[in-house]
Amino acid sequence: MNNSKGTFYSVSTGPGDSELLTLQAVHILKNCPVIFCPETLSEKNKQSSKNIAWDTVNKVVNLKDKTVKFFSFTMEKEPLQARQTYKKAASQCIEYLTKGLDVAFISIGDVSLYSTAGHVASIIKNGGFSVRYIAGVTSFSQAACAASLDLAGRDSKVTIIPGDAYINNGELDNILESDGTKIIMKTHRYFKTLIDLIIEKNMCDRCYIVQKCSMKDERIYNGQEIKNLPPESYRDSYLSVIIILENK
Amino acid sequence: MNNSKGTFYSVSTGPGDSELLTLQAVHILKNCPVIFCPETLSEKNKQSSKNIAWDTVNKVVNLKDKTVKFFSFTMEKEPLQARQTYKKAASQCIEYLTKGLDVAFISIGDVSLYSTAGHVASIIKNGGFSVRYIAGVTSFSQAACAASLDLAGRDSKVTIIPGDAYINNGELDNILESDGTKIIMKTHRYFKTLIDLIIEKNMCDRCYIVQKCSMKDERIYNGQEIKNLPPESYRDSYLSVIIILENK
Repeated sequence: MNNSKGTFYSVSTGPGDSELLTLQAVHILKNCPVIFCPETLSEKNKQSSKNIAWDTVNKVVNLKDKTVKFFSFTMEKEPLQARQTYKKAASQCIEYLTKGLDVAFISIGDVSLYSTAGHVASIIKNGGFSVRYIAGVTSFSQAACAASLDLAGRDSKVTIIPGDAYINNGELDNILESDGTKIIMKTHRYFKTLIDLIIEKNMCDRCYIVQKCSMKDERIYNGQEIKNLPPESYRDSYLSVIIILENK
Repeated sequence: MNNSKGTFYSVSTGPGDSELLTLQAVHILKNCPVIFCPETLSEKNKQSSKNIAWDTVNKVVNLKDKTVKFFSFTMEKEPLQARQTYKKAASQCIEYLTKGLDVAFISIGDVSLYSTAGHVASIIKNGGFSVRYIAGVTSFSQAACAASLDLAGRDSKVTIIPGDAYINNGELDNILESDGTKIIMKTHRYFKTLIDLIIEKNMCDRCYIVQKCSMKDERIYNGQEIKNLPPESYRDSYLSVIIILENK
């Protein structure tokens, strides 16, 4: 590793509330001269996660004296197309790293779980640069805490699935019927299909839908509420975590 | 909820490094006059997690002017026996809450996942007291970040299991053969059995054993290293996270 080059930090900013940043994330963000802020656009309703990561950091770290770069990711269906976007983001970061500047790439949630940051980080790592992943609070931990839930008994498993993908591949039904607690993330595309299935399977009583968790307008739906979700819950499907507790 | 009573905070302290505390956890711990520190003893080697949670907090929050109470939990095999211990801890906390004092009950990892704190919190909540769960960084997020891993592709599932329980009930084999990434926690009792199974199944190349993650003596084993684990890795089995990445 060439020490005159900068380090790439893939920094988790947690679910949204600045209070959920770790001390480590704050220290790194304060010290990095360059901050990359990905803007992920949902195809369906053009909601953006840019403002979440940026807002989270901006309330705690003074960004005025830093180089802040925004980069748009669309949720590409084609892996090849997505890979091109990651490469483009990586090469923009590499420009700064080569100059010896540390770069922080911020992402909501935790970078090890369904994060765009990981793809960009691998490309940069393969280019011979020093890369560090900075862990954060995952949205499902915060969702469980917001609803005061224990996710699992001490002998039970927890299965985390990307909801849209599992509806697409027809495997969702098997997962819902399996043992243990289920956490369904990434549900923006087929949110209604998923809710209908949960109602049909009579799982509402042990289902918690947590939207915009840790944010000012956080909402939690459970039991009968799930049968009459308000329109805004469909609008905010992009920022939902669905927890279905184990059947005891 | 009676406002003259104190609030019970179930505070996640993360995997060990004080830098992984959230700003929220630090603020709450600074403001709470009473801190409960559970000491969980492993049957096998009497390792204790007391010092981890306490050390994590003590480096950042001045505990000198606070009432700090230690409470021993042994890992009871019998649910009834375990429940008695939780009740005893809860009633000690309630003494302070009734006096109008806020109590912070600290636990390593995240309180929603396989944590003793949840059991105590439910008893206190059922007693009519205000309870708040404070999310933290889970050990598996930090383990993945320490090894620079993406836990799952965007279409893949992640299964979290308590290892000892799944060896006990004979279901581990099925889990290891299932799709997606597996995260095995709570492996202290049958660590060797589990490692032998991973070697037998030829999974070492996509297996990462992270021990004492985020601590000074953190260790990561992968690939061939797993076939020749040093004695200390068996000693520290209590603080291990095992990640088996999906078979791509």
